[in-house]
Amino acid sequence: MVSKEMYELGAKRSVIRELFEYGKQQAAVVGKENVFDFSLGNPTVPAPECVKDAILELLASSRSEEIHGYTSAQGDLEIRRGLADYMSNTFNCQLKAENFYMTCGAAASLSITLRALTESPQDEFIIIAPYFPEYQIFIRCAGAKVVVIPADTEKFQIQMSLLEKAITPNTKGIIINSPNNPSGVVYSEKTLKALADLLKKKSTEYQKPLYLISDEPYREIVYDNLQIPYVPAYYENTIICYSYSKSLSLPGERIGYILVADSVENAKDIYTAICGAGRSLGYVCAPSMFQKIVLKCLGKTSDIELYDANRKLLYNGLSKMGYQCVNPDGAFYLFVKSPEENAVNFSENAKKFNLLIVPGDDFGCPGYVRISYCVDPAMIKRSLDAFQKLINLYN
Amino acid sequence: MVSKEMYELGAKRSVIRELFEYGKQQAAVVGKENVFDFSLGNPTVPAPECVKDAILELLASSRSEEIHGYTSAQGDLEIRRGLADYMSNTFNCQLKAENFYMTCGAAASLSITLRALTESPQDEFIIIAPYFPEYQIFIRCAGAKVVVIPADTEKFQIQMSLLEKAITPNTKGIIINSPNNPSGVVYSEKTLKALADLLKKKSTEYQKPLYLISDEPYREIVYDNLQIPYVPAYYENTIICYSYSKSLSLPGERIGYILVADSVENAKDIYTAICGAGRSLGYVCAPSMFQKIVLKCLGKTSDIELYDANRKLLYNGLSKMGYQCVNPDGAFYLFVKSPEENAVNFSENAKKFNLLIVPGDDFGCPGYVRISYCVDPAMIKRSLDAFQKLINLYN
Repeated sequence: MVSKEMYELGAKRSVIRELFEYGKQQAAVVGKENVFDFSLGNPTVPAPECVKDAILELLASSRSEEIHGYTSAQGDLEIRRGLADYMSNTFNCQLKAENFYMTCGAAASLSITLRALTESPQDEFIIIAPYFPEYQIFIRCAGAKVVVIPADTEKFQIQMSLLEKAITPNTKGIIINSPNNPSGVVYSEKTLKALADLLKKKSTEYQKPLYLISDEPYREIVYDNLQIPYVPAYYENTIICYSYSKSLSLPGERIGYILVADSVENAKDIYTAICGAGRSLGYVCAPSMFQKIVLKCLGKTSDIELYDANRKLLYNGLSKMGYQCVNPDGAFYLFVKSPEENAVNFSENAKKFNLLIVPGDDFGCPGYVRISYCVDPAMIKRSLDAFQKLINLYN
Repeated sequence: MVSKEMYELGAKRSVIRELFEYGKQQAAVVGKENVFDFSLGNPTVPAPECVKDAILELLASSRSEEIHGYTSAQGDLEIRRGLADYMSNTFNCQLKAENFYMTCGAAASLSITLRALTESPQDEFIIIAPYFPEYQIFIRCAGAKVVVIPADTEKFQIQMSLLEKAITPNTKGIIINSPNNPSGVVYSEKTLKALADLLKKKSTEYQKPLYLISDEPYREIVYDNLQIPYVPAYYENTIICYSYSKSLSLPGERIGYILVADSVENAKDIYTAICGAGRSLGYVCAPSMFQKIVLKCLGKTSDIELYDANRKLLYNGLSKMGYQCVNPDGAFYLFVKSPEENAVNFSENAKKFNLLIVPGDDFGCPGYVRISYCVDPAMIKRSLDAFQKLINLYN
């Protein structure tokens, strides 16, 4: 009596969520301090002070109706203007308010964009392993097909030859996510240039634009002073899907945006279809108060140094023990090669030492595990002994 | 290169939005105080003090990660428990946390519910004129068909004989909205009993449950001490879609819930499919801070007396001039019979006097206009002369 597809989606708990729930049960048995939960990507570094300050300032200075009233569907004009100025200055480009559509976070940004672009059930979107598992769901919800490019397990960039073969006349777009969840890798300039060249070549060959959807919730979470490239500077037909969940540690507040620059082919039609898709999916407007908060916090981030300390602690600690870790440039995930081929088994073995780590299978990358280090550093320190015992099983 | 359906949806501004934009232009010409904008349903009464107090208390007492972190997809457990207790006490029923799914407002509640219930493109949802225009969009987005029951223009209840004929083996559910936008009418106990009897009869006849989707954003906005009936008490297979947009004047914050009581047939499957549909549409979780705020404001509302004063001012004023007004029991809309058959013409004539009122055509009820009285009372007073001049055209 209900949608079979929706029922199955609701019934199937994600592996990550299963592990998290297991951790809570196990904590009751062995004590919370003895469970090392690296399962979730829930920021533990607090939001920067500007968030609290902005809320207090807003409550003190504005009327209730101004704070909590509907904004226009695409977002408050003043906020989009501020965002356009900030982004234009930061990335040395020419953006205006009309290029931005405020959303309820990255999942909404992606869902709306995919629905706006999908014309027919034959349309294909390409995702590159390892990828965020919900991409599959959002693409199917939009009524299109998912095409997966296997992971480049050498450098976790993109296997261009495989991507080239996968692009067909049905290809509508490609989703990239850099800094990447789950690998922690940032696509190099070389990768972006090669990707742009390939997409331009294929666009010409098929005489249609191929849209690059750049999912950038981790854009500001990079280490070692790495400069994050502005993807549209490499490839014009780029649509950016952004969220403040990670950069401002506001994952529950559901606030982000879609950016369609004028230089995107059919930019106006896409933006109009985005307005339609947002309406169709029931999104009315992005949360009004947090639209105003992010305007007041432009350019600010949570304290990324704390994640960096965790990163070093874990990467160095595990590498010394003999784990093969993918070098993490950004986000807050360490991607580690499983010492046995079956990462699901490995993750099960890890549970024996109360280590909760996520097998890469659901990310389209079997043989690896994801370790989220947006956690208390004290827990990482306590966990190292358990990681040592775990790898001893394989030595 | 984009979805035709989404493009058209994004390109077609609603009549209401057109009027609102016209009003802003006209204000620049004749002065803001001389434009009488009754187009939007945007609450003007501020949120109750408890909202601000709750935000301040939360900021003072809780850690950033607790306030702004992800909640579970169905909403924070503590909040759903509080809501279940409050609703059980208020409506003398037995509800628990597991019956509630927190959403980003009424549009999300409806979109998610419709998608969860729709099994095949043959499925039909019935809506009863006058209806909120977005129902059509949400039903089509879910992949189902819309069936419209014409308005009962005598009492603005439900024409049961027409509804009976419209129910087929393909009928999946019926959406009701009481207090109603745009009529302002509340369905009587007699209507609800007759509706329940009909749905039970038809459920038996077709040997399948017919779900009643009760869209209740105006539930608390009723006048003359009217008691709003609890719809599931009349018909068990009722799913409530709620929003705090109007009751707490928080329309921009996008916070509401879906309630599926255990007594609903297949309740558990429906709830599971709702979880799947929320995930599929990109909703992750309802805004976390406002989940906590509404818990602290249970049972509170904005000052409805202010709307009541507006209601009386407008209803009495217009009735005296000879306008035929539908008696408004709730919400903040006055539905008025157009003195000429064509309400679009009438609305155009109204613009000559800078009166912005919405023709009923998009609500499925031609021949009427909607006047939103969630406005400044001073504007209503200033507008009465213009209403008089308008009706003089027809005398």
